[in-house]
Amino acid sequence: METNGRQKNVENGIVSEEQQSSVENIISTRDKKKEKHEEEEEEEQLSVEKIFENKEVPSWRKQLTLRAFAVSLVMSVMFSFIVMKLNLTTGIIPSLNVSAGLLGFFFVKTWTTLLDKSGLLKQPFTRQENTVIQTCVVASSGIAFSGGFGSYLFAMSERIVKQSEGKSGFPHKNPTLGWMIAFLFVVSFLGLFSVVPLRKIMVIDFKLTYPSGTATAHLINSFHTPEGAKLAKKQVRELGKFFSFSFLWGFFQWFFTAGDDCGFASFPTFGLKAYENMFFFDFSATYVGVGMICPHIINVSVLVGGILSWGLMWPLIKTREGDWYPAGLSHNSLQGLQGYKVFLGIAMILGDGLYNFFKVLSRTVAGLITKIHDRDANMHLPTADRQSPTSKHLSFDDQRRTRLFLKDQIPTWFAAGGYIIIAVISTITLPHIFHQLKWYYIIVIYIFAPVLAFCNAFGCGLTDWSLASTYGKLAIFTIGAWAGASHGGVLAGLAACGVMMNIVSTASDLMQDFKTGYLTLASPRSMFVSQVIGTAIGCAVSPCVFWIFYEAFPDLGMPGTAYPAPFATVYYNMAKLGVEGFSGLPKDCLKLCYGLFCASILMNVIRDATGKKYGRFIPLPMAMAIPFYLGSYFAIDMCVGSLILYIWQRTNKAKADAFAPAVASGLICGDGIWTMPNSILALAGVKPPICMKFLSRGTNR
Amino acid sequence: METNGRQKNVENGIVSEEQQSSVENIISTRDKKKEKHEEEEEEEQLSVEKIFENKEVPSWRKQLTLRAFAVSLVMSVMFSFIVMKLNLTTGIIPSLNVSAGLLGFFFVKTWTTLLDKSGLLKQPFTRQENTVIQTCVVASSGIAFSGGFGSYLFAMSERIVKQSEGKSGFPHKNPTLGWMIAFLFVVSFLGLFSVVPLRKIMVIDFKLTYPSGTATAHLINSFHTPEGAKLAKKQVRELGKFFSFSFLWGFFQWFFTAGDDCGFASFPTFGLKAYENMFFFDFSATYVGVGMICPHIINVSVLVGGILSWGLMWPLIKTREGDWYPAGLSHNSLQGLQGYKVFLGIAMILGDGLYNFFKVLSRTVAGLITKIHDRDANMHLPTADRQSPTSKHLSFDDQRRTRLFLKDQIPTWFAAGGYIIIAVISTITLPHIFHQLKWYYIIVIYIFAPVLAFCNAFGCGLTDWSLASTYGKLAIFTIGAWAGASHGGVLAGLAACGVMMNIVSTASDLMQDFKTGYLTLASPRSMFVSQVIGTAIGCAVSPCVFWIFYEAFPDLGMPGTAYPAPFATVYYNMAKLGVEGFSGLPKDCLKLCYGLFCASILMNVIRDATGKKYGRFIPLPMAMAIPFYLGSYFAIDMCVGSLILYIWQRTNKAKADAFAPAVASGLICGDGIWTMPNSILALAGVKPPICMKFLSRGTNR
Repeated sequence: METNGRQKNVENGIVSEEQQSSVENIISTRDKKKEKHEEEEEEEQLSVEKIFENKEVPSWRKQLTLRAFAVSLVMSVMFSFIVMKLNLTTGIIPSLNVSAGLLGFFFVKTWTTLLDKSGLLKQPFTRQENTVIQTCVVASSGIAFSGGFGSYLFAMSERIVKQSEGKSGFPHKNPTLGWMIAFLFVVSFLGLFSVVPLRKIMVIDFKLTYPSGTATAHLINSFHTPEGAKLAKKQVRELGKFFSFSFLWGFFQWFFTAGDDCGFASFPTFGLKAYENMFFFDFSATYVGVGMICPHIINVSVLVGGILSWGLMWPLIKTREGDWYPAGLSHNSLQGLQGYKVFLGIAMILGDGLYNFFKVLSRTVAGLITKIHDRDANMHLPTADRQSPTSKHLSFDDQRRTRLFLKDQIPTWFAAGGYIIIAVISTITLPHIFHQLKWYYIIVIYIFAPVLAFCNAFGCGLTDWSLASTYGKLAIFTIGAWAGASHGGVLAGLAACGVMMNIVSTASDLMQDFKTGYLTLASPRSMFVSQVIGTAIGCAVSPCVFWIFYEAFPDLGMPGTAYPAPFATVYYNMAKLGVEGFSGLPKDCLKLCYGLFCASILMNVIRDATGKKYGRFIPLPMAMAIPFYLGSYFAIDMCVGSLILYIWQRTNKAKADAFAPAVASGLICGDGIWTMPNSILALAGVKPPICMKFLSRGTNR
Repeated sequence: METNGRQKNVENGIVSEEQQSSVENIISTRDKKKEKHEEEEEEEQLSVEKIFENKEVPSWRKQLTLRAFAVSLVMSVMFSFIVMKLNLTTGIIPSLNVSAGLLGFFFVKTWTTLLDKSGLLKQPFTRQENTVIQTCVVASSGIAFSGGFGSYLFAMSERIVKQSEGKSGFPHKNPTLGWMIAFLFVVSFLGLFSVVPLRKIMVIDFKLTYPSGTATAHLINSFHTPEGAKLAKKQVRELGKFFSFSFLWGFFQWFFTAGDDCGFASFPTFGLKAYENMFFFDFSATYVGVGMICPHIINVSVLVGGILSWGLMWPLIKTREGDWYPAGLSHNSLQGLQGYKVFLGIAMILGDGLYNFFKVLSRTVAGLITKIHDRDANMHLPTADRQSPTSKHLSFDDQRRTRLFLKDQIPTWFAAGGYIIIAVISTITLPHIFHQLKWYYIIVIYIFAPVLAFCNAFGCGLTDWSLASTYGKLAIFTIGAWAGASHGGVLAGLAACGVMMNIVSTASDLMQDFKTGYLTLASPRSMFVSQVIGTAIGCAVSPCVFWIFYEAFPDLGMPGTAYPAPFATVYYNMAKLGVEGFSGLPKDCLKLCYGLFCASILMNVIRDATGKKYGRFIPLPMAMAIPFYLGSYFAIDMCVGSLILYIWQRTNKAKADAFAPAVASGLICGDGIWTMPNSILALAGVKPPICMKFLSRGTNR
């Protein structure tokens, strides 16, 4: 039960591929919603739109400026690198929404200020244009996540298959630029067309919250008020400072990484013994920043998971070598300790996912029933009074927003036609890309997809929580089982996962954007076009970025390296599990898996049962599972981030709240962007000059 | 022309063994004096003593409390470690006055507050008691400097002699606890007795400034006003924070130092090539702190010196191997490149020293003539009007201070008797310690010493600048030449240097303390007793601390190690130069020495001629000479400190001025105190577990 990279971004500032599914999010989402509501109410009293009343809203065509897309393209490349790095290191992707917002504002504002000074400025920078940029960037970097470069797509590669199977010869599909781009283009647009007709129902009739979309809209609105712009400028400065620091730090670290186990990333901060068990601070500015964005409980959960696994379980299981698993196996063999690491992690992830899937589903259904009931009740009233019972009269803001939202229409025939045409194209194309994925599997997926896309968009609107990767896993298991082991079920399942994930994730993305557009008076048409363009950029840029990583770092995907791509192995083994059942697991592993699966569900139950007061101290199973495979070095980075934030909040709450997201974004982006020159250096064959090595006293002699 | 450790401390916040002699100090001293005068005038208007009018001044016996000496003892040990570390690493010792003041205040205040709460407090904490502590601590840690453990005393050891001579068998005297303590005890008290009778003339009649003594008094006075105590508390907290950080950082670094060239101190921050030429940031909290205390120009001078020598001169001279000096010599041979490093450094130090010696001497003489003239003029006036013509009437402060200063007398017969008795004892004892030092040398020294002590105390009062190490060098050359090469002139010279330095440095120390006591209403008697006790503590503690270093680090004094003790080599070679002339120098070295000697004087002349506006940009030769031998790693640390201070001052001047000295003290003290457990670990044979090594890519393979 993962969510896509996007939703998170636009979400409650939380985030990680795998964490989304935890109740924590729902809780924090609730808080946020409450806050949001309060904010909204407050702002309603102040009336945001009154502030902007004198500002003309440009027509939808004028909202789509060339400069907006130029900036979007630059930022898309930047964010694709950042997201790709996160994908391939741990799979934890924090909300990059604030950074995207700040950077977009900064770029265009600089541009327009410069033009204004030279007298060449023809069109001022509006909120609507800002929304277009935001939408485009988030859509394109969303593809970097939902493209599965760190999960299903890379899971098909020979490197991962060989690692999991222990030997070569198994069916695989190595990534090449051609098929990746083709695949993404034929599957990524379906989601957009499938939910376009529902925008009025979701946004105006149901008045769904879409907390992330709302938060983004608030951010953008604030940028365009005088005080907001002032604060934004300061935040941008802070972001820039830490961006530079983080970039330079990455650059500095590079010099010391000649050879394996060299450099700061191998720093045995707590001693060599701890380092062997993956407990060390690896000086990664990225994950310190991630820790500052993620709620404390997530950071603590990751650490607890790391201590539980690498500190306790693995050493204990290791003593059973020769009993629980054959002795003398290769380090990476899934029949050995590595198998325990992977499958116990999967068990926890599935347990947490399953619990939350049913939980969100029940909330979605209950929410849907209530909303439809309310809508029907409103239908009997005169048009002017058609609204939810909570607000008796439409405020000035709502009136103005609704009027502009309904002005530009997107015809239903266009949406339906688009869906059918793309579905046909992709049904014909996909079996050529994946021979294991038969055309009838695809048709079945495309019949169910709109329903699931609607479910996801609706659930996301209610809970701010995209279940994209959960639907993806659903596809893995169903299509995989249908195809069966003899017909390449593993690859079929993974490919089906990709198709499904892209549809449902772009669907909820689009609806979030409509909500953002609604609140910033951006036209639904410009939102749709921006999302389409952003998706297209993403489909072209993301595979290229992945390709650069793949070419530059030949050990990409190998455990213990800088880019272990943990979820590639996890996804491959999930698909295998779906096709072959439990036969591949080492002895006794299954029992432990059952245990952790149940523990995972139990922890969720306890969280929900104890309520906010104590529940917030229960760790999140999904977050706990990530270090099972990776070790806790990044958990320590994240806890350092948590600690910094905590101390900062203790010393100066107001300043911390205003600037911590900017500082964290700076840290993440700077280090992320450094991967760009880093991979270029690697491609050019430039090797770092120094190796900083850590030897025990004995070895040194 | 060095000063002792003490004066500096109590001085204008500058400081380094070797820097003192530079004009910069005079300039900054002038500023300080101006500031001081303004301050004093301002405070005179506000009248400091009016604030304290209601506070009873305890009798001199009550000022000498047991708790004061208990605290002093603890702090003496602390500061001896800190000063010893500085002595043995670079010889640059910054002003530790603020730290001593803050820590003393903190200890006794905590103590009295605790007692007060439990109702056991009998005697409140007064300024006078605080002054007693300050005097005692600074006196004892002064011995750690003037004891010559980093210079003349250690220069006699076999290790240094062998290094300089290239082979063993030359006369030497290895440090042992016994003779070091005996030596210090017989020479350190003479200075005190020699100038005691002059205190009224210097402090009241001549009204000498003693900027450091005055500054210390201001600090102590401020601690005992309500706002001052508040600020001091905050400063103490800041100091504590950075103390802990620096201590823990030292501890953390330790873990990675198994083996040679391991750990952070060997970090090739700017690459391996730069590291070989000693350009790197060695992560030393101490020297970052030192850089924050020293004026920017000193830090820049050190860096310029480093670039000039290790960046330019040494590589150029190296190309002449086989021509300018024989090829294939051992790395440490003074006949080779090492000789150039040592002797060119000595040339600069002597040039700078000589210029400033004559400069201060002329100022001293001129000042003396003016003062005596003023005094004679006053003599003809009625007693009440006897004062310098600038202030027609004695202010309330001056009246009160003078009354209390004259209340407790120290009889002249006591001082003269003490001097003679100690002189006799030491004349008998010293030849037993150093066979080369004949009794008649000692008698000659003791005849001239009181005059030189007076000169130094007077010059210091005028310019805040102790010439102790200059008088020491004078003794090296004169006594060395007198004894001659055949009679162990080198050792005789070094021992004579020790005798001389201790006398003149304690003399000026004492006078500074009288000034401080005068301004804080502490009795001269308690000052004298405190200085005696402090000196005694220093004579006992310093050799022990040095002994710990000597035993714990077997490579103490070897170039390229953690404790190279650069001035030990410099002093030995100066003594040798005095005895043997220039015969020992490698070819062409002498010409270069003449050049640098003249350049050194020229730079001083330019400084003085161009005035403050441009003169302050001329680097200080003395500071430039230090990295000649050591390399510029510590210069980089110091410049980092400078940079931090500069940025801090730019962002928040007020805060930086209030807290930078506390932060710097914290950094210096924490790291310095870490050497205590560090050497204990070394003595106990506990070795660090990890070696952080830096290998080039090729070597790593």
